[in-house]
Amino acid sequence: MANGHGIGLHGGCGTQAQALMSEAEWAEARTHLADALRAGWRILAGGGRALDAVEAAIVVMEDSVYFNAGYGAALNASGAHELEASIMDGATLACGAVAGTKRVKNPIRAARAVMEKSPSVMMATSTADAFAERCGLDMVANSYFTTERRVKALAALRQRAKDGNAAAATEADKHGTVGAVACDANGHLAAGTSTGGFNNKPVGRIGDSPIIGAGTYARDGVCAISGTGQGELFIRHAAAYDVAARMMYARQSLTQATDALVHETFGALKVGAGVVAIDGTGRVVAPYNTLGMYRGWIMADGRIVVATHAEEHVMGTVG
Amino acid sequence: MANGHGIGLHGGCGTQAQALMSEAEWAEARTHLADALRAGWRILAGGGRALDAVEAAIVVMEDSVYFNAGYGAALNASGAHELEASIMDGATLACGAVAGTKRVKNPIRAARAVMEKSPSVMMATSTADAFAERCGLDMVANSYFTTERRVKALAALRQRAKDGNAAAATEADKHGTVGAVACDANGHLAAGTSTGGFNNKPVGRIGDSPIIGAGTYARDGVCAISGTGQGELFIRHAAAYDVAARMMYARQSLTQATDALVHETFGALKVGAGVVAIDGTGRVVAPYNTLGMYRGWIMADGRIVVATHAEEHVMGTVG
Repeated sequence: MANGHGIGLHGGCGTQAQALMSEAEWAEARTHLADALRAGWRILAGGGRALDAVEAAIVVMEDSVYFNAGYGAALNASGAHELEASIMDGATLACGAVAGTKRVKNPIRAARAVMEKSPSVMMATSTADAFAERCGLDMVANSYFTTERRVKALAALRQRAKDGNAAAATEADKHGTVGAVACDANGHLAAGTSTGGFNNKPVGRIGDSPIIGAGTYARDGVCAISGTGQGELFIRHAAAYDVAARMMYARQSLTQATDALVHETFGALKVGAGVVAIDGTGRVVAPYNTLGMYRGWIMADGRIVVATHAEEHVMGTVG
Repeated sequence: MANGHGIGLHGGCGTQAQALMSEAEWAEARTHLADALRAGWRILAGGGRALDAVEAAIVVMEDSVYFNAGYGAALNASGAHELEASIMDGATLACGAVAGTKRVKNPIRAARAVMEKSPSVMMATSTADAFAERCGLDMVANSYFTTERRVKALAALRQRAKDGNAAAATEADKHGTVGAVACDANGHLAAGTSTGGFNNKPVGRIGDSPIIGAGTYARDGVCAISGTGQGELFIRHAAAYDVAARMMYARQSLTQATDALVHETFGALKVGAGVVAIDGTGRVVAPYNTLGMYRGWIMADGRIVVATHAEEHVMGTVG
């Protein structure tokens, strides 16, 4: 019962204290969120698929320096980037995921290629890179992903560890992920998630972003959802599917189900977490329990809304 | 409200036509299942943890030539073995998983090491092997896992593919996985799963066995479950967590929830699937929708029951 298309996204709930970036940087980050929303919306407004809208929105965030996915991704403990992503089509439950990729420029495209061009759902490390390359995706050197911001953050983390103060890692150091959810004019849902993990993450660690049911889930008639936060906890709680299950089996609304996960389950555990989710009517919710979460959506009246902390910014309207 | 400890296991639902193994081989396979049950039971009867019982039972199956896990695992498309496993403690929701390992003799032990000795839930490929080695686990050459049975099966598959008859792969060629679930005297639950994937699987493919929520899940007061079947479908349906969610949110019994998954969801899709699951009272169920499934459990009266097809065999009793 779709009453209109919709899109929502998050850019990670590791949003740092406002003093850590300049006002100009915050403004530019918000612009990139709005760009991502517009990229997805264009597809939906043209009658395109939710799946395409999700991919397009995530590519914009992967290409932005501000988000921990693709360009600008976190550095692992060896100072390299291992990226992961997943995407799911709620119409068919088809899905694809990659983990530990090092060379594919847009991991969300690799996840989609696994979904559509392989019999598998999930591929890891050099196999996933080689597969993406065979599929004709843009490949880059691992150093392409490195930005001054993440190098400084890793150095600061290591210094704090040396000082015996490892626990002082900020939420921003610990997590950051991008995700998008969409509902198209046919009422089909899709979700996708992409991340570099977190700064100083163990080499070879796989988080929740490429785990269908943990970081990403989509099912027509129920919801599409993408999560951000402490990945290990999202896996333990099968977080993304838990929201769908609450809606299917406990008849909770999208708001009730996502609030239960973010505020009750993760709130009680004091685990930083946020999600963006959409239902089959195009309604978007984006609860989080941290200081802030990069997020955005487009209202029924066409207003583009973007936020990082409590305040919501209207970034113009779409046609 | 535990009223007694219990253990159940499966050895894959790819059980082949009875004519494909000799009577002596079927008898030996059943003996190995009984050995696995006894190994787990000894721990439970001694007041030990469900988690230890699950690991012990799976190690016996990994070491048996008859099951597609550890020694005797399937060969991938390059003729090598890439193994995967996961384990979960229902008491704490702690869990660990490895995928794409090539050198650790018992992948279930590597999954447990990731759970207990790393901050991560999941590690893949050479990183997982190196981690297991640092943890002091037994390491072997990849060729250790190779058995005549799987070499012949791969050759037969390739011949059929050459003959343009790839669809003639039997269930046994396509899947096979081992898993165990247990409830200890304190009512704590645990589940584990280990596999070599399937014969001729794409290099780098990750299936459902190392995916918490897909192939494995455990939560005290609800259930512990391990699945076997077409892994991609288990991931799409978040199969293991779906059973737990049906019990938590739709108030279904263990039998209702597992039957719904195996016979309704997967039955409707004509997807070969089976699970073994246990609830907090120690009751075991093991539904499957294929020709057969290696499975076993210990009854409240101590009888050891093992089966491959419809017929159940009593293999003695435990103290």
